Amino acid sequence: MKTLTENRVYNFSPGPATLPEPVMLRVREEFLNYAGLGASIIEISHRSKEFDAVVDGAIALFRELTLLPSDYSVLFVHGGGRMQFAAVPMNLIGRVASKRALYVETDAFSTNAIQDAAPYGQIDVIASSKQTAFDRIPTLPPVPQDAAYLHITTNNTVYGTRWNRFPETGEVPLVGDSTSEILSRVIDYSRFGMVYAGMQKNLGPSGTAIVVIRKDLLGKPLPYTPPLLNYATLEKNNSMLNTPSTFNIYVAGLVLGWIKEQGGIAAVEGRNNQKAKLLYDCIDGSQFYKGVAQPEHRSAMNVTFKLPSEELTDQFVKKANKEGLYALKGYRSVGGIRASLYNAMPIEGAEALAAFMKDFERAAG
Amino acid sequence: MKTLTENRVYNFSPGPATLPEPVMLRVREEFLNYAGLGASIIEISHRSKEFDAVVDGAIALFRELTLLPSDYSVLFVHGGGRMQFAAVPMNLIGRVASKRALYVETDAFSTNAIQDAAPYGQIDVIASSKQTAFDRIPTLPPVPQDAAYLHITTNNTVYGTRWNRFPETGEVPLVGDSTSEILSRVIDYSRFGMVYAGMQKNLGPSGTAIVVIRKDLLGKPLPYTPPLLNYATLEKNNSMLNTPSTFNIYVAGLVLGWIKEQGGIAAVEGRNNQKAKLLYDCIDGSQFYKGVAQPEHRSAMNVTFKLPSEELTDQFVKKANKEGLYALKGYRSVGGIRASLYNAMPIEGAEALAAFMKDFERAAG
Repeated sequence: MKTLTENRVYNFSPGPATLPEPVMLRVREEFLNYAGLGASIIEISHRSKEFDAVVDGAIALFRELTLLPSDYSVLFVHGGGRMQFAAVPMNLIGRVASKRALYVETDAFSTNAIQDAAPYGQIDVIASSKQTAFDRIPTLPPVPQDAAYLHITTNNTVYGTRWNRFPETGEVPLVGDSTSEILSRVIDYSRFGMVYAGMQKNLGPSGTAIVVIRKDLLGKPLPYTPPLLNYATLEKNNSMLNTPSTFNIYVAGLVLGWIKEQGGIAAVEGRNNQKAKLLYDCIDGSQFYKGVAQPEHRSAMNVTFKLPSEELTDQFVKKANKEGLYALKGYRSVGGIRASLYNAMPIEGAEALAAFMKDFERAAG
Repeated sequence: MKTLTENRVYNFSPGPATLPEPVMLRVREEFLNYAGLGASIIEISHRSKEFDAVVDGAIALFRELTLLPSDYSVLFVHGGGRMQFAAVPMNLIGRVASKRALYVETDAFSTNAIQDAAPYGQIDVIASSKQTAFDRIPTLPPVPQDAAYLHITTNNTVYGTRWNRFPETGEVPLVGDSTSEILSRVIDYSRFGMVYAGMQKNLGPSGTAIVVIRKDLLGKPLPYTPPLLNYATLEKNNSMLNTPSTFNIYVAGLVLGWIKEQGGIAAVEGRNNQKAKLLYDCIDGSQFYKGVAQPEHRSAMNVTFKLPSEELTDQFVKKANKEGLYALKGYRSVGGIRASLYNAMPIEGAEALAAFMKDFERAAG
């Protein structure tokens, strides 16, 4: 079953997650000597012309691949997605006198976003799918127009749901946490005031976030916002007010190049849908597996399902692991199985898992 | 002159900086397949037992090497040293009703620390060496005992000075930014309330800081402190409230292991002093080179000196670079030459630079 090089497995980890093999090979190849400098990419100054080219190249590729409108900035920010849970209100909530912001609760991570925003203003949860155990994206009431922004989690990695249509918000900027799906489907960024994503699923190593923000939203931070979380300050300094995570940005640049080589986001999205369909077909054609998410809200990135018992679930995880299908255990609060199918998961990985699911069901049945 | 493997140069970069070659080789060797998992260290969950062992191992090694007293915690924090410029007051200044903190200004980075702390309380600069162009560590007045802490920069990377004796602060906790010298000399941590350091000089890749803090100082953060900058919250979560920079912590663990193999911090300190002496002897024996720092305040990590003219300085940098002596240009506000001699710089590198300095002086004279 192992068709990857060097005894690598099909890695379904929810994050940090599998990265494209050509990227991994390239990093390894040039790890001791970057661009002929005689030093590693992790050993050179972020003020060197070589690293400037890395940052500028990554941002240019992101813009090209997403067709990003010119009135948006792209930033790299320390701390991953969760640091933005505080940084978003610090940067945006002061735009309205009421310091009011709206949140939609759809997952453990959206719950954290709501909690982390609490110190900075009036945080109103205008919709939640908690009552149905987060199996869907809730229907929204009309969006109050006095709010600084509406925050959604565009893909919910724990329960395996996603927003397949983004809400109409009128004049209120829509802010999307796309940590678990950035660059996995074609998105009209002009629908958003801001989109952010921790890198560790579709972009690279953990510890850094990419932030895409409409420029008119910059420059009204709360007074106690640390400079490194002040998006306007970061924009002025090309994300290098201090030493950024140079390795992470370098790997992200290589991953963006790989997406381009794959044919761009639309091509990657097509393959992502194929991979997800392999597993969802398997679930829908079975009495043994039960999907966690409502079909119309299913994620293409995180496929979640349950087996008839915990015992069978444990067996499934262990047996799959032995066959080179790694990290399939569901999130602790949900249980069951979660197969994460980020961009870098090859179709063969999803095929192998679908075949394993059928075999396992037969053997257990 | 190139005695390192694979056309690597002697890399005098001030940071990100050269790392031990055995560490670099190990990272490369296991980059595609960590611990036989079939996935890279950057592709596995921070909640896996394999990564738990990485974090716990790194912290245990740090404690062992520094003989850290048991009433101190060791944390990994996002954002490098500069993020702590805001996090230090956010965590510590609320301990006193006056919200007063004391700073010593010794360098561009201490100036940034003072600026970044300003929103959080009354920030008093009790001593500065600005008037002598930061060529020394200033003498301190008696330390006012009503302050939450006294902040110093233990090694000043821009001008090449360091605190060779730490100040007496009475009951006021001493906080040290040791970004550019952590683990390079034996330090009595019990003299400090807190020591922190960005990793990118003596510990690993950029974007993460190590924070060493006395436990009784934890737990009184300002109300708007982001959870990821709240040291008490991080301590409760073993630095993994969210996904940390897994790659950075992994490399830091390997670097700590390398220090142990070198004989520990005292042995490394001995070699650091030897390396620095090679260059300072060269400066002191010359009319051509002029040291920037006063001799009694010289750093062993960053050796700074000037040449008679900018033209000669440019020639020096270019010629050195051609001979495999990389990144010797001084900081933009200082000019001249800065040779950074972090732990990973081999003695042969300092010898090669000293020989080059003598040759260059002869040719120019």
